[in-house]
Amino acid sequence: MTQPSDKALVPFVSVDNMMRLIHHAGIEQMLRDLADYVEEDFKRWELFDKTPRVASHSDVGVIELMPTSDGEAYGFKYVNGHPKNTSEGLQTVTAFGLLADVYTGYPVLLTEMTMLTALRTAATSAMAAKYLAPKGATTMAMIGNGAQSEFQTLAMKAIIGLKSVRLYDKDAAATRKCARNLQGLGIEVVSCKTPEEAIEGAQILTTCTADKQYATILTDNMVGSGVHINAIGGDCPGKTELAAGILSRSDVFVEYPPQTRIEGEIQQMPEDFAVTELWEVISGKKPGRTGDRQITLFDSVGFAIEDFSALRYIRDRIKGTDYFIDLDMLADPDDPRDLFGMLQRAKA
Amino acid sequence: MTQPSDKALVPFVSVDNMMRLIHHAGIEQMLRDLADYVEEDFKRWELFDKTPRVASHSDVGVIELMPTSDGEAYGFKYVNGHPKNTSEGLQTVTAFGLLADVYTGYPVLLTEMTMLTALRTAATSAMAAKYLAPKGATTMAMIGNGAQSEFQTLAMKAIIGLKSVRLYDKDAAATRKCARNLQGLGIEVVSCKTPEEAIEGAQILTTCTADKQYATILTDNMVGSGVHINAIGGDCPGKTELAAGILSRSDVFVEYPPQTRIEGEIQQMPEDFAVTELWEVISGKKPGRTGDRQITLFDSVGFAIEDFSALRYIRDRIKGTDYFIDLDMLADPDDPRDLFGMLQRAKA
Repeated sequence: MTQPSDKALVPFVSVDNMMRLIHHAGIEQMLRDLADYVEEDFKRWELFDKTPRVASHSDVGVIELMPTSDGEAYGFKYVNGHPKNTSEGLQTVTAFGLLADVYTGYPVLLTEMTMLTALRTAATSAMAAKYLAPKGATTMAMIGNGAQSEFQTLAMKAIIGLKSVRLYDKDAAATRKCARNLQGLGIEVVSCKTPEEAIEGAQILTTCTADKQYATILTDNMVGSGVHINAIGGDCPGKTELAAGILSRSDVFVEYPPQTRIEGEIQQMPEDFAVTELWEVISGKKPGRTGDRQITLFDSVGFAIEDFSALRYIRDRIKGTDYFIDLDMLADPDDPRDLFGMLQRAKA
Repeated sequence: MTQPSDKALVPFVSVDNMMRLIHHAGIEQMLRDLADYVEEDFKRWELFDKTPRVASHSDVGVIELMPTSDGEAYGFKYVNGHPKNTSEGLQTVTAFGLLADVYTGYPVLLTEMTMLTALRTAATSAMAAKYLAPKGATTMAMIGNGAQSEFQTLAMKAIIGLKSVRLYDKDAAATRKCARNLQGLGIEVVSCKTPEEAIEGAQILTTCTADKQYATILTDNMVGSGVHINAIGGDCPGKTELAAGILSRSDVFVEYPPQTRIEGEIQQMPEDFAVTELWEVISGKKPGRTGDRQITLFDSVGFAIEDFSALRYIRDRIKGTDYFIDLDMLADPDDPRDLFGMLQRAKA
């Protein structure tokens, strides 16, 4: 039978190929490049079609589609959230993504996004820290040592020059895992027994815990002036990590207020609680850090545009490489009206 | 490196494998089986999560995600619509779909859906005709001889025993293509020069033209009593095929009123124009055809539940066959908290 035309073939990046690509590019270089793509898209934020997520809820979890478009490319991520999965040996979150050409409607990339989301989340945090953290910050407390912790640490090293990370998790095994994984990667690792110990001397406090409940990982009196808080873990209704008092003393920066007010730390605050949109800082419309004693807080929940940036990066990055295979995903009859003829000819 | 677990692998049906499967199953048998799956889902219609489509519009086309769920499985279809594509040698519509397990959030099937949509659309039309067309209908006028015409004809043959099809298209080349494709498939084919000639003696009138404008393929005086109209082509705002007078004289059956009132033939009618939901007929809550002189009209626009039925069918049908390949699409670390460790181990 005739081969499908090039446009009918969709490049697919498997988990295995994504990991090969990361090692080929070098993870720190890839985090820097991803941060550049995210930063570029934050600079042209207003141009994006910002559709809310489309969620399908069940008793045990949620499946979401997160679409967006810049008018030239269209992307969406499929992502599930099933906290009970871990106890059954499955991932809480799995994800894949697709990029398409707006002009033709043809998909141009299908990729795993579990690994890629971990990278883009870390790259976004570090990109935000570049604007919000105290200049010359070298030490980060990493509270919550789960799947995201090593990526956060390496992104801060690659993008803002972090020298030392202080780990804490209520599960000591998680801290051991994180410390082991970070060994030999050129960053000082200090394992701590309490959150108080972890934040000692740290200019950046990153919280990334998995509790799905109103938790207080950082209490008000733990947070001194001048720090930058990078709050990653509070990312759904009912899940927060910070005492409300910290929010009141901080200048809070968010991705997309309508989403963050529902999912972020600020869900604890009144609806008119003042926040600054991060894109306004990145594009120079609003100031980021303005003083040495200011507490800055990036209340991050993850937004479709960051996935879009990551999809764009992968599309560009795999060109000319063998880190993908072509999927015959779109029917492509010679005569568009002759789908049936194509089917009949395939029989021969 | 360790192989991903079974659940991290997603079965993928390419266009090539879909065509192999159709030939292996036999297209008429597959249309009957698909109609059974669609009918089964129409019977439990109320149970479905009926999210509206999520559309991203541009000057030249639209990209849509059509999600739905029955509480056990979740499915969505990606579909674009770009009328200008044909002039550039590309398809107006391409599609793929995904089915996932609601309990785990893990995808269980990724498949091409350009070919599959053609089949499910035809199977749905014939399933509706089983309830709405005059008993013993043997002749269909097929007005519009594009990509859907052969599938419509074969589905009516397979499901309600159609014996003869009368083809008409304003482009005679399309009629020749359709007649040629249907040769030797056990149905009488009559090529006609006018729509009036095509509807002579036909008990079923199928309209499936591609004009994106208010067109009048059937005028009021062409439609006599007792026929069933299967209106496929009017499926987006501004695109209709039937004179309003026909709608006034018909009992109109639709998939999902909120969508059909925007996209279907009834967009020409007042908002309170009476319609019957097809699922109510299928599940015995409302009558279908009630008399010999009644004009029944299935104002079909295509709904997510039909795609869901088709995805369920493919999931069940490919088990134990080689009509799919497994895609390594979901990252699956042994310890869910150790995504980074999985990445590091892949380096070795």
